Amino acid sequence: MTIRPYTHKVQYYETDQMGIVHHSNYIRWFEEARVDCMEQLGYGCKKAADSGVDFAVLSVFCEYKSMTRFGDFVNVGLDVTSLTPTRITLKYTITDSETGELRATGETGHCCYHSIKKRPVSLKKELPELYRIFDGIKAKKEDVN
Amino acid sequence: MTIRPYTHKVQYYETDQMGIVHHSNYIRWFEEARVDCMEQLGYGCKKAADSGVDFAVLSVFCEYKSMTRFGDFVNVGLDVTSLTPTRITLKYTITDSETGELRATGETGHCCYHSIKKRPVSLKKELPELYRIFDGIKAKKEDVN
Amino acid sequence: MTIRPYTHKVQYYETDQMGIVHHSNYIRWFEEARVDCMEQLGYGCKKAADSGVDFAVLSVFCEYKSMTRFGDFVNVGLDVTSLTPTRITLKYTITDSETGELRATGETGHCCYHSIKKRPVSLKKELPELYRIFDGIKAKKEDVN
Amino acid sequence: MTIRPYTHKVQYYETDQMGIVHHSNYIRWFEEARVDCMEQLGYGCKKAADSGVDFAVLSVFCEYKSMTRFGDFVNVGLDVTSLTPTRITLKYTITDSETGELRATGETGHCCYHSIKKRPVSLKKELPELYRIFDGIKAKKEDVN
Repeated sequence: MTIRPYTHKVQYYETDQMGIVHHSNYIRWFEEARVDCMEQLGYGCKKAADSGVDFAVLSVFCEYKSMTRFGDFVNVGLDVTSLTPTRITLKYTITDSETGELRATGETGHCCYHSIKKRPVSLKKELPELYRIFDGIKAKKEDVN
Repeated sequence: MTIRPYTHKVQYYETDQMGIVHHSNYIRWFEEARVDCMEQLGYGCKKAADSGVDFAVLSVFCEYKSMTRFGDFVNVGLDVTSLTPTRITLKYTITDSETGELRATGETGHCCYHSIKKRPVSLKKELPELYRIFDGIKAKKEDVN
Repeated sequence: MTIRPYTHKVQYYETDQMGIVHHSNYIRWFEEARVDCMEQLGYGCKKAADSGVDFAVLSVFCEYKSMTRFGDFVNVGLDVTSLTPTRITLKYTITDSETGELRATGETGHCCYHSIKKRPVSLKKELPELYRIFDGIKAKKEDVN
Repeated sequence: MTIRPYTHKVQYYETDQMGIVHHSNYIRWFEEARVDCMEQLGYGCKKAADSGVDFAVLSVFCEYKSMTRFGDFVNVGLDVTSLTPTRITLKYTITDSETGELRATGETGHCCYHSIKKRPVSLKKELPELYRIFDGIKAKKEDVN
């Protein structure tokens, strides 16, 4: 299973007075890519809501490499870099969709949280098939490296 | 009862590539002023949540008169222009806090919605004292005009 | 010339604590639709920047008809309702992409502003062919009504 | 020289459908605190613009410790953790203004960029007195630890 990069079109309202995208928006693009990834894996927002399993954000990190401007298209690649039964770390690579130039890299850490049980849960127990998919993505990534 | 204007400090992330505040933020400042007004009237978010009465946004309007920039302070004045048992219309006047120059005027329309009963309700019945306060603000405003 | 509706996918970060899209985001979707419309007409952000002609926002209006939620897709239809050599008014109709249910209607007013000359200009003089296209869209709309 | 913590009032539009503040907003609060810090040091946005020296964001990091809700007030403490002639790293500590409970910690990395010369510059050369202030804050912090 390979995750296709997510494409975001840079909007005017995402720019700031420096004439470039405000840095806080990259954090939102990470979220857009996560949602898209979940849909690719068959776990779109409807199914996720039904299962009650949510991925609470524990941390975010972003390193800005070059500037993004209004009208640009960016690809957001996503990988699994760490996985335990209750936690997952995702890595993001943002590149210009046209030139491939690196714009930013980032990482988000999550715990599995059950929105009905109102407490952290084990992804491995709640959604074992999704856990296996994430584990497969992580393994594949490690093979490449 | 007079509502004191609400003061907002313009943040860097509110600017866009024209070097001015993006127009969508004024809609958010209206909301900030509404929240502040409710607190002045003794109906802050905690009390509002307890009562279950919420003001759902039915419409927004904003007319932009002059530009606002990073670092500016703006005053947002608020008035009640129309009131029925179930609906209220608020008027906003945004001015530069220092020079008094008019930046924008606007209006929002709301219905009273009960977040527990999950349906529109009569403010006059649910929170009669708040209804009377709004009616007083409206009457005072009409006296002036 | 007909403008195809613009499709927006509702993002998680656009929701608020009522579990629906925060009303300020609709104003941003209007902008997304405007940008998309300009691209359809051959006046994407690069060409617009070259010409120096910009459409400053003078006013926005939005009437909320029904709620939009995370994961929904919405279509934003755009029409020209008024056109003078220096000013244009656009009308928006937001519907659910799947069910066609009306979500919101809105309007934005703009003046043509020259970002290099730093003053309002006549669209009819600066970009006569774009003026004619807008006039055609407006006329067609009037025929329908 | 001690930097007073910056206080932010949590707005309704900052919440998401989980009923808590969306995580991307903390990145914006870091920026609010930076701006406030610069004003405390006598380098508000007007003076900064005159000098031409800007602090471009190279990286952001945030670790979320507990949830923040609409109506809360948070304090954002700021420290200098690393300083070279061209680069600075700032650390943030977000706590509930009332209870002191830790909400988040974070870090941002910056390079000094000259907005007129359009290239990275040495803060130590461009604004030596500001460099000394930052160095003093950093030293004081180290004394405490």
